[in-house]
Amino acid sequence: MTLEAAFRYIDDRSEEIVERLVRLCRQPSVSAQNLGLEECARLVQTMMEEVGLQAEILPLTEGPPVVLGRYERPGAQKTLVFYNHYDVQPPEPLELWESDPWAAEIRDGRVYARGAADNKANIASRLSVVDALLKTQGELPCNLIWVVEGEEETGSPHFKEFIERYGSRVRGQGAIWEFGGLDYGDVPAVTLGLKGMLYVELSVKTLGRDAHSANAAIAENPAWRLIRALSTIQDGLGNITVEGWYDDVRPFTPEELEALEREPLDEEQLRRDLGISQFLRGLTGLELKKALAGAPTANIAGLWSGYTGKGHKTVLPAEAHAKMDFRLVPDQDPKKLAQLLREHLEKHGFGDVELKIQAETPAARTPITDPIVRVAAETAREVFGKGPNIHVSSAGSGPLYYFTNALKLPTVAIGCNHPYSNTHAPNENQRIDVLIQGTKWIAAVVERFASA
Amino acid sequence: MTLEAAFRYIDDRSEEIVERLVRLCRQPSVSAQNLGLEECARLVQTMMEEVGLQAEILPLTEGPPVVLGRYERPGAQKTLVFYNHYDVQPPEPLELWESDPWAAEIRDGRVYARGAADNKANIASRLSVVDALLKTQGELPCNLIWVVEGEEETGSPHFKEFIERYGSRVRGQGAIWEFGGLDYGDVPAVTLGLKGMLYVELSVKTLGRDAHSANAAIAENPAWRLIRALSTIQDGLGNITVEGWYDDVRPFTPEELEALEREPLDEEQLRRDLGISQFLRGLTGLELKKALAGAPTANIAGLWSGYTGKGHKTVLPAEAHAKMDFRLVPDQDPKKLAQLLREHLEKHGFGDVELKIQAETPAARTPITDPIVRVAAETAREVFGKGPNIHVSSAGSGPLYYFTNALKLPTVAIGCNHPYSNTHAPNENQRIDVLIQGTKWIAAVVERFASA
Repeated sequence: MTLEAAFRYIDDRSEEIVERLVRLCRQPSVSAQNLGLEECARLVQTMMEEVGLQAEILPLTEGPPVVLGRYERPGAQKTLVFYNHYDVQPPEPLELWESDPWAAEIRDGRVYARGAADNKANIASRLSVVDALLKTQGELPCNLIWVVEGEEETGSPHFKEFIERYGSRVRGQGAIWEFGGLDYGDVPAVTLGLKGMLYVELSVKTLGRDAHSANAAIAENPAWRLIRALSTIQDGLGNITVEGWYDDVRPFTPEELEALEREPLDEEQLRRDLGISQFLRGLTGLELKKALAGAPTANIAGLWSGYTGKGHKTVLPAEAHAKMDFRLVPDQDPKKLAQLLREHLEKHGFGDVELKIQAETPAARTPITDPIVRVAAETAREVFGKGPNIHVSSAGSGPLYYFTNALKLPTVAIGCNHPYSNTHAPNENQRIDVLIQGTKWIAAVVERFASA
Repeated sequence: MTLEAAFRYIDDRSEEIVERLVRLCRQPSVSAQNLGLEECARLVQTMMEEVGLQAEILPLTEGPPVVLGRYERPGAQKTLVFYNHYDVQPPEPLELWESDPWAAEIRDGRVYARGAADNKANIASRLSVVDALLKTQGELPCNLIWVVEGEEETGSPHFKEFIERYGSRVRGQGAIWEFGGLDYGDVPAVTLGLKGMLYVELSVKTLGRDAHSANAAIAENPAWRLIRALSTIQDGLGNITVEGWYDDVRPFTPEELEALEREPLDEEQLRRDLGISQFLRGLTGLELKKALAGAPTANIAGLWSGYTGKGHKTVLPAEAHAKMDFRLVPDQDPKKLAQLLREHLEKHGFGDVELKIQAETPAARTPITDPIVRVAAETAREVFGKGPNIHVSSAGSGPLYYFTNALKLPTVAIGCNHPYSNTHAPNENQRIDVLIQGTKWIAAVVERFASA
């Protein structure tokens, strides 16, 4: 079997693979803060070229560019597409990190850095897949197109433009999404869907300037007003109370429900990981899994008004703000929901609440019956000796819709991720053993996809 | 009239008076941030000694010390007491200041600095009163005791201890409070009362750590929970919905109501100053004045949770916090109200909301019929040629209660303040002309009080 040589190469060069991850992590690339994005795009381009891909940087009208990698095998019938992102979440709150988020310190078999797991490990891994296959086989078994964008963590606001402008160059028969890897218990998992996202900022301004709080007797406090406006959006149990919000929610198919039933979920471990004693509304079992895979959410990601420093200040603030991310499911339309939210606020007397849309991406799911799902599942079993779990949908979001719906690419989310990696949180980390195993998995998928 | 020489002295030395204010302002002294307090106490002591007072620094078990100034006139029957505070509010948000808040820049006849108006102008002014009277008359006409504390802006948490330990050294027949001066239209005003204060921080923690907001589908967001808890405290119109909150509110006396009726209030100017188009609940006329002087308030001074930086981050925060100042009126008891608030939260299912009491001071009012009120009013008319307006109570707070109730000192709030001084806000400033006129007023009050 030709993969044996590639697997041995991957094992022998594991330090080189870790080095690729460390190099990517030491380049900060925070899309929310416009930090280091061009630099990181160039680094990804350079690293693609180093392993033998053609690579170019594609500009967009606004925002960081997309890196497009390419390998053409003469006469190949099949093309596999990779999607990744080189941007990361902001590292704040910095004081909770045990080592500098950009230092990529290695401790106890893990690389600690912002972006280590999400999503630079998968970039390092796929670079290493290309390297291993080219070095051991002289060529890749199929064509490869690799899209690495720089705004995933801010909701991919220009990814739609990328698809419209450059989508004709991203044709293929299947795709591998940015993330994936092991579930709790180190069982590999294949994820078929992603939630969508509507990200908004709500702002209330009731005064011309911050004032002495003695004036609270006679002037409206914007924080009170924002609180009352927000209170109308959610019922305290996680249910969204905006009229029509659930109208377009597509129910699970019988096959999807069956997969959800089979999906293992260690509730105790998940509770411990989140530091909670019980789930929202006491969710458990299938209902808990359905919520993760299929419940629209209304999350307050940020809330602020007035004086938030030490000690006490008696101020009547002029403004109050909230950042909210709404996770969407198929077939909710973010544009329609934004309009519903606007109308909802007006109807409840909060027409003065300013609503800024910061991101909008529909949800997406690949059918469980697609051949790419079988390829991912078979190779998972071969590489890890167990599993895989099939996840109908991640609880997270991403612009998968543009791959599955606009480009008609059946897509699976697999890779080298693992639980307890603290993505989007302090002390994000990537296990090195899973980085290596996940790299073998992707190599096997490339091989199998080409001949499937 | 002996005051003529003192008034001339004050006019001639106006630059020296401004210099005193600038010197005080350049010493940062933020009690909320424990910044420069000891240094400012020593500066006040030094400046008291420079004008001829005895001055000592009295330590407390915790917090910054109190500066006690003293002048003893052999054989004097009467003792006047001054109250001031050397601490100031935090200067944030810094980006809205036109000059450094500690630079004490002079522009257009004003000194711009944090603390310029609140309360360092009145300290500079009273130092200058002592200087002028001693230099022109050789002695003060009565005994003087001067209390300058360092925690007024954080609710005077140790002022009660000061009164208990050192109150026997603060005996007299009348007192002048820290602030006061001109109303809109430059009419002098005499204020007889202050609201009390209950300052609390509410905190909700629902997770062990910040998490990826995909988990919003299954874990409770602390910001939603805090919002719901806060929503039960106030009705959106400024009315506090905690059971029993208004039970002990003392009604205005007929004399107080009459004074309120007479009290001029330029509503248009006040609206413009605050940058609002209408007052809370559409308040106007007597009802507006009653709210300012006598309405308990529940103000959100600070609110924060999750990511409040630029751009967008999709986090499920672990914690949410609010700072609230409740203004109290006679005869509300802050300890009792804190207990009511605790019970209220429990009764509404928010027993997990942590409630930290950061300050508690009862409200106070000097009777409108007290002789010190007449002294202040007569001298105001003499110095300014008009007014004064009598204010039954300020809308603001302070530990006046300990003077009026614990020490039995009838107290009026008068001084060199003026509207548009941006107290507690960016670009706080003190008009130099009012600083000088207010200094004459206090000199006249000292003279008249001694012989009344």
